[in-house]
Amino acid sequence: MTPTIPDIVIGRLPVYLRALTRLSQEGVDVTSSHELGQRLGISSAQIRKDLSHFGGFGKQGTGYQISYLIDQLRQVLKVNREWDVVLVGAGDLGSALLHYRGFAERGFKITHVFDAAPEKIGKQIVQFSVQPMDELQETVQQHNIKMAMIAVPAEAAQRVTDLLIASGVKAILNYAPINLNVPDGVNVQYIDPVLHMQRMTYYIP
Amino acid sequence: MTPTIPDIVIGRLPVYLRALTRLSQEGVDVTSSHELGQRLGISSAQIRKDLSHFGGFGKQGTGYQISYLIDQLRQVLKVNREWDVVLVGAGDLGSALLHYRGFAERGFKITHVFDAAPEKIGKQIVQFSVQPMDELQETVQQHNIKMAMIAVPAEAAQRVTDLLIASGVKAILNYAPINLNVPDGVNVQYIDPVLHMQRMTYYIP
Repeated sequence: MTPTIPDIVIGRLPVYLRALTRLSQEGVDVTSSHELGQRLGISSAQIRKDLSHFGGFGKQGTGYQISYLIDQLRQVLKVNREWDVVLVGAGDLGSALLHYRGFAERGFKITHVFDAAPEKIGKQIVQFSVQPMDELQETVQQHNIKMAMIAVPAEAAQRVTDLLIASGVKAILNYAPINLNVPDGVNVQYIDPVLHMQRMTYYIP
Repeated sequence: MTPTIPDIVIGRLPVYLRALTRLSQEGVDVTSSHELGQRLGISSAQIRKDLSHFGGFGKQGTGYQISYLIDQLRQVLKVNREWDVVLVGAGDLGSALLHYRGFAERGFKITHVFDAAPEKIGKQIVQFSVQPMDELQETVQQHNIKMAMIAVPAEAAQRVTDLLIASGVKAILNYAPINLNVPDGVNVQYIDPVLHMQRMTYYIP
């Protein structure tokens, strides 16, 4: 594994991993770059090229052993382990994220929830008890947590981000509808469903 | 407006629109490609080039009039009107989407909710009453609805997609963790937060 793999390739690996996991659940043992490409709308050449960054994983003509490829991709992406995640924001959206089982099922375990609103502190949501913001830094440092989700209003998101980074967080999934400034060495990914909707209306005749 | 604008440019316009709306809410009247670029981590040259596809919207040296640029982008993206949207899937995730106010606030109004599970039919979620799947086609056609959100299990997502498309839907926001096959003329956008998380762990030292 070299540090020169383009970020766009890294971005496609989780998509491959998801499709392979699905094939495996369907009882398929072996697949090809052609079959995978058809499922994903990506060219088979692209898939072979992407996987070649990591040694290829497949032999010419025999296809990919799915379980082996899944193991290898999980190792490359470092998702062959469980990650602890803190959530900041216990409003409607934060509450929905706490109810969503897809994170834990795929290795991302929300361990703590924080909110700035005094009336939310101590509130129980699923198995979580909402903690005040002034406990965030110590909690994150003590448990050596590297990942966070932000589900606060836009105007609070940069302040929360700065606090998370000061506490040692290196990866942030941001649901607040605003772009965040982060230093080198910290990654942010954005989820704003409205942006996706607005991107599609352009094409509706 | 020409049909040759690259999709990647269309994809950035909602991001510009969101940042400009935020600046406007902060009371700012005029901005520059430089300021906007700094907020977004995009080069000012890129922003000027993207906007030049639509006539530019700004005069050299005087910056962009924010309210004017917002109006123009909303027109280009066709979000200067309200869009009706149907939701398929009334489980935890679907319910969270019905509670999320961000869609309606930015012009996407969920009007109907469908589910296949008999025990969910007729259930009230916020102001919605869950309808059975066999009412989907007629409802979508009758109201001429072009947009849908899918929040069903992966194994049902393609079947739901085919039904939506047969009913006239042209744009689908898919929360099911699976890639969908759609014909030309139909757009799909994907939301799977776990893919974003898996993309970041690679970079955590």
